[in-house]
Amino acid sequence: MNKSPTFPFSLEAYLADRRREVEKHLFASLPAAETRPAILAEAMRHAVLSGGKRLRPILCLAAAEAAGGSAADAHCAATAVELLHTYTLVHDDLPCMDNDLLRRGQPTVHAKYGEAVAVLTGDALQTLAFGILALSPERRPGTVARLVAELARAAGAAGVIGGQVEDIRFASAPTRAVIDFVFQHKTADLFKAACRLGVIAAGGDDSAAERLAHYADGLGFAFQIIDDLLDAQETATDDPPELSCLAVMSADEARDWAKSLTKQAVAALDGLPGDTAPLAALADHLLTRII
Amino acid sequence: MNKSPTFPFSLEAYLADRRREVEKHLFASLPAAETRPAILAEAMRHAVLSGGKRLRPILCLAAAEAAGGSAADAHCAATAVELLHTYTLVHDDLPCMDNDLLRRGQPTVHAKYGEAVAVLTGDALQTLAFGILALSPERRPGTVARLVAELARAAGAAGVIGGQVEDIRFASAPTRAVIDFVFQHKTADLFKAACRLGVIAAGGDDSAAERLAHYADGLGFAFQIIDDLLDAQETATDDPPELSCLAVMSADEARDWAKSLTKQAVAALDGLPGDTAPLAALADHLLTRII
Repeated sequence: MNKSPTFPFSLEAYLADRRREVEKHLFASLPAAETRPAILAEAMRHAVLSGGKRLRPILCLAAAEAAGGSAADAHCAATAVELLHTYTLVHDDLPCMDNDLLRRGQPTVHAKYGEAVAVLTGDALQTLAFGILALSPERRPGTVARLVAELARAAGAAGVIGGQVEDIRFASAPTRAVIDFVFQHKTADLFKAACRLGVIAAGGDDSAAERLAHYADGLGFAFQIIDDLLDAQETATDDPPELSCLAVMSADEARDWAKSLTKQAVAALDGLPGDTAPLAALADHLLTRII
Repeated sequence: MNKSPTFPFSLEAYLADRRREVEKHLFASLPAAETRPAILAEAMRHAVLSGGKRLRPILCLAAAEAAGGSAADAHCAATAVELLHTYTLVHDDLPCMDNDLLRRGQPTVHAKYGEAVAVLTGDALQTLAFGILALSPERRPGTVARLVAELARAAGAAGVIGGQVEDIRFASAPTRAVIDFVFQHKTADLFKAACRLGVIAAGGDDSAAERLAHYADGLGFAFQIIDDLLDAQETATDDPPELSCLAVMSADEARDWAKSLTKQAVAALDGLPGDTAPLAALADHLLTRII
């Protein structure tokens, strides 16, 4: 692995290349369209292959390389993280949660296939995430066990699902403590798992995993703050309230917070053995959406 | 492991002992009641600790011993299988599926905590199942990877979830082919996984796994047929129709089918290196409920 990035580094080209790789592996992980029951295979494909930035799997692959390893070793982990993320979107869109009928301009799974199939499609995507993760190469004894334990911790009751429960309970009147809890668990925990999984899958060491976890924590929080700022510009006032950090701070304060977190995230990349240019560029790029 | 069972063998005492072990490990696997968010920890505990026969985890432990291994090695696998089964019950009970308000005399999770929390509770139990499975001792390199791949296959789109999709689609007018598909995937696949996981966790060989998979397949089908026969005796005629093999055969034919499957299941236990008395007694016992 060459430590120096290729100059001039184009984040746009990097993301496009990585997205193609990720799409290819996601496609291959899904049940063939004719698998019985066909409606389930179709709904899973609809949920997973309807676009998306693929930010989390790209983080996973970039973290593998930043830790001095090979992205090829991290492809199962990257696929698993995106399948896991997609299942949470399918369930978040359900009538009993956000009741969203559209996602990325397409009908949501329950809008297209009904509520029961949507619940089961989300369930099947979570199962598949762990199934694919188990196919990761065992570069060291116990690699798969560590990967599965790590993803389960991040995705479970003390992670993403716990964050989602607090989100729906306090959406209309959050305190600052609720904002911190939801941002940490609903968003940052999976960013962090994406990076840590990449490092573990690629045989990186604990100190690399630690640095990249700090990076991902900062990035995850910044991502969510930026999302809230962008939402506030776009949302019609008659939409149901969604949990937003702007309930407890001004837009200027939120922007400053996102900037400071991004700076900390990029600083955490110092001292890693591999190429960190993509991760640094990605963090800075997210910030340009609000400045 | 002593191959000869202790005489006189008491299935009742055996099941009671095993149930106590299983309950202890299930209890320990769950988030502490005070874990934030408290409602999620509470709902998970409500779903898992509300009784139940614990048939699948007991199969897992008994299969470990029948394969000549130690049940102690299979406790994570047994816990994982029961958590997985419990998540499917929580989601099956949802208003968009069976809309059940009671299970084992207790309010279902959505009846007690609301639909959104019930979806997320089921999700968290599935995540936890894989997390606990990853803690299994690696008696051989790659044990955890095999366990996770096996459970994911049985529980996923080509297994339990696929079976559930066909169940809800054809409940009111199943063909014999639908019955076979649903019994295989919704029920027998998880019985089979329980046994195979027990063998793998305890370091048993492939031929033991194969025999026990045959046993579990027969047992799973017989269990479902027996369930349909018992349901037909109890169900009020104004209940919504549930998929039943009695839609395509007489009660006498169903009873004969269950008997023949049980005989085949018990025969498949021949030649295993460990104690198979509990598994044989269990299969015969299930049958006595309908004869």
